[in-house]
Amino acid sequence: MIVNGKHFRTIWINPKNKKSVQIIDQRKLPFSFEIETFRNVKEIAFAIKDMHLRGAGLIGAAGAYGMYLAVIEAIKQTDFVKSIQDSANLLKATRPTAVNLSWAVDLMLNKILVDANKNGEDKVEQALFMAEFIANQDAEACRMIGEHGISLIREISQKKNGETVNILTHCNAGWLAFVDFGSATAPIYAAFEEGIDIHIWVDETRPRNQGARLTSWELEQQGIKHTVITDNAGGYLMQKGMVDMVIVGSDRTSKTGDVANKIGTYLKALAAKDNDIPFYVALPSSTIDWKIENGLKEISIEERNPREISHIEGIYNDELVEILITPEKNVGSNYGFDITPARLVTGLITERGICKANQESIFKLFPEYDR
Amino acid sequence: MIVNGKHFRTIWINPKNKKSVQIIDQRKLPFSFEIETFRNVKEIAFAIKDMHLRGAGLIGAAGAYGMYLAVIEAIKQTDFVKSIQDSANLLKATRPTAVNLSWAVDLMLNKILVDANKNGEDKVEQALFMAEFIANQDAEACRMIGEHGISLIREISQKKNGETVNILTHCNAGWLAFVDFGSATAPIYAAFEEGIDIHIWVDETRPRNQGARLTSWELEQQGIKHTVITDNAGGYLMQKGMVDMVIVGSDRTSKTGDVANKIGTYLKALAAKDNDIPFYVALPSSTIDWKIENGLKEISIEERNPREISHIEGIYNDELVEILITPEKNVGSNYGFDITPARLVTGLITERGICKANQESIFKLFPEYDR
Repeated sequence: MIVNGKHFRTIWINPKNKKSVQIIDQRKLPFSFEIETFRNVKEIAFAIKDMHLRGAGLIGAAGAYGMYLAVIEAIKQTDFVKSIQDSANLLKATRPTAVNLSWAVDLMLNKILVDANKNGEDKVEQALFMAEFIANQDAEACRMIGEHGISLIREISQKKNGETVNILTHCNAGWLAFVDFGSATAPIYAAFEEGIDIHIWVDETRPRNQGARLTSWELEQQGIKHTVITDNAGGYLMQKGMVDMVIVGSDRTSKTGDVANKIGTYLKALAAKDNDIPFYVALPSSTIDWKIENGLKEISIEERNPREISHIEGIYNDELVEILITPEKNVGSNYGFDITPARLVTGLITERGICKANQESIFKLFPEYDR
Repeated sequence: MIVNGKHFRTIWINPKNKKSVQIIDQRKLPFSFEIETFRNVKEIAFAIKDMHLRGAGLIGAAGAYGMYLAVIEAIKQTDFVKSIQDSANLLKATRPTAVNLSWAVDLMLNKILVDANKNGEDKVEQALFMAEFIANQDAEACRMIGEHGISLIREISQKKNGETVNILTHCNAGWLAFVDFGSATAPIYAAFEEGIDIHIWVDETRPRNQGARLTSWELEQQGIKHTVITDNAGGYLMQKGMVDMVIVGSDRTSKTGDVANKIGTYLKALAAKDNDIPFYVALPSSTIDWKIENGLKEISIEERNPREISHIEGIYNDELVEILITPEKNVGSNYGFDITPARLVTGLITERGICKANQESIFKLFPEYDR
């Protein structure tokens, strides 16, 4: 997508030195835009763990590029296989609950080990090709989500005779969470491109405020009308008819259509249902966990540091600082996600099309998983 | 209630100089506890406007004490009646939407003007008596809400065989919002007093964080177990069976049981309903607007400064500072309240007892308004 008028992805090979990888350092957004360069797998592993980058699709791609850097090192070692396996373990341990990370790292690992008798430079070339393939596949899946999801926005726009379509989103399921386009934002970007009049309600998304910091920055850069609101506000906006549809992303989806997404998503789904507002979840199929039947019972939810609640980052005297917003010792239960049951989801927008949030419809789009 | 081991109300006559009024300056809580003294009506009007004090019941009491200070000044003026009326208008203009403020000021005004031929010191004594009466009535209504509401908590405690009862509350409907005891907190304080094992989930309540700042401070001072959570978290806690009941306050209640309360309340009511968790609203009957049939259509909701969303206060280097948390220009729709429709409310806890949230049950408790 566009940053200061130029096209960017969230991760790419350094054009000046193909043996290094570059990313946008997301910790400083939107206060400053900085590019970071990684020369080895340790640096990229540290960056994933320390959240210089985050988001389902992007973490996967970063794992793949990390394995590419791992190959460059491993061909200089006496035990190539051990070196590669150590790197894979290092990467996978950085965010153990992220589905895409272990998926991408394992894919790279298998490919690299299958052809382990190739010569050194061929191994490097092959790993680069594979990492680029994984990144491109992520971007392409998101682009297709946009192609399919735009029809929903177009339809509302037509019903409203071209009046502004108001879309609410929670957290950042934008291009910053993937390689490009994003999941929840892909239909939004596609609709904007087509000239449909849209306006986005951006939930600030406490405690880490990824809505107020990342989604708002993305939309601003593309020139899309939007308003940052508190997480508390969406219900009232729906009560007053100020929201036409909700689109959110998903961190993990059961094969029955239950959605684990950023904490607070469930509350918006309830409000959408109560006000007859369509509630869509946009997701590349890589976030579907084909083993899971019941999201609430089977998806384990990461509990994060309570410091995210008691402290907050922002600008004071032109400096990015962290302040204490409650002196309470009793701060906690900082669950990262909640579960939106399938019954509250109007539909899933995937790279293969839109389907209802139930097992039958999901398997119709993805028959290869129906056993 | 208790502050640092000593009993306090939120507003009182200065024991060292009966012609001045003192309050707890709530702007600095919980970071520092400071008492402020007012010597005339202008000072008290400024303090209400500038939110040194806030909350339905407390604003009413402050209006009453303000009128007492107004009488002390007015008896020195040539035109007593004009002076008193000017003061009343000054006070009522500070928070035009607050029901209790105009109610208390008008009550004082009528009483003062009816007996306008009394001599100066008698007028002062009478106004003091009346202001104390209004403050005592507020405290007593809240105490009675506690007396009635405790039965609900006791019942859950018995069902759970004495295990901890987990109660979620939103914003600050605590004693800081009234003269004493609070509305939503009154049953909590009563239950704690009786030795029932309770734990309170405190929504931080963006944008002004009255939960994280005021409710948590109140509970800490009384020694009640509690945890501050983000506004996004409550839904998931309910999904996981970690909430036994919800008690919130009300800023304005329709005679049919619709509740206007701090923005975000509606989302918690929906989640409570979806998880079969009792959702109670505690309110002195002074917040019932007997003219209103339909809360969503008829209660106009105050829209506040977007700066409350883009900026936040906290401690940096031992100093209370305000920082910018999103550089967005597009911040807004900062509605102060939302409407929880009566169908989501399990019951209303009033000073006369508990009733269902419908016109028939409300009028059974308050027959004098049934015409």
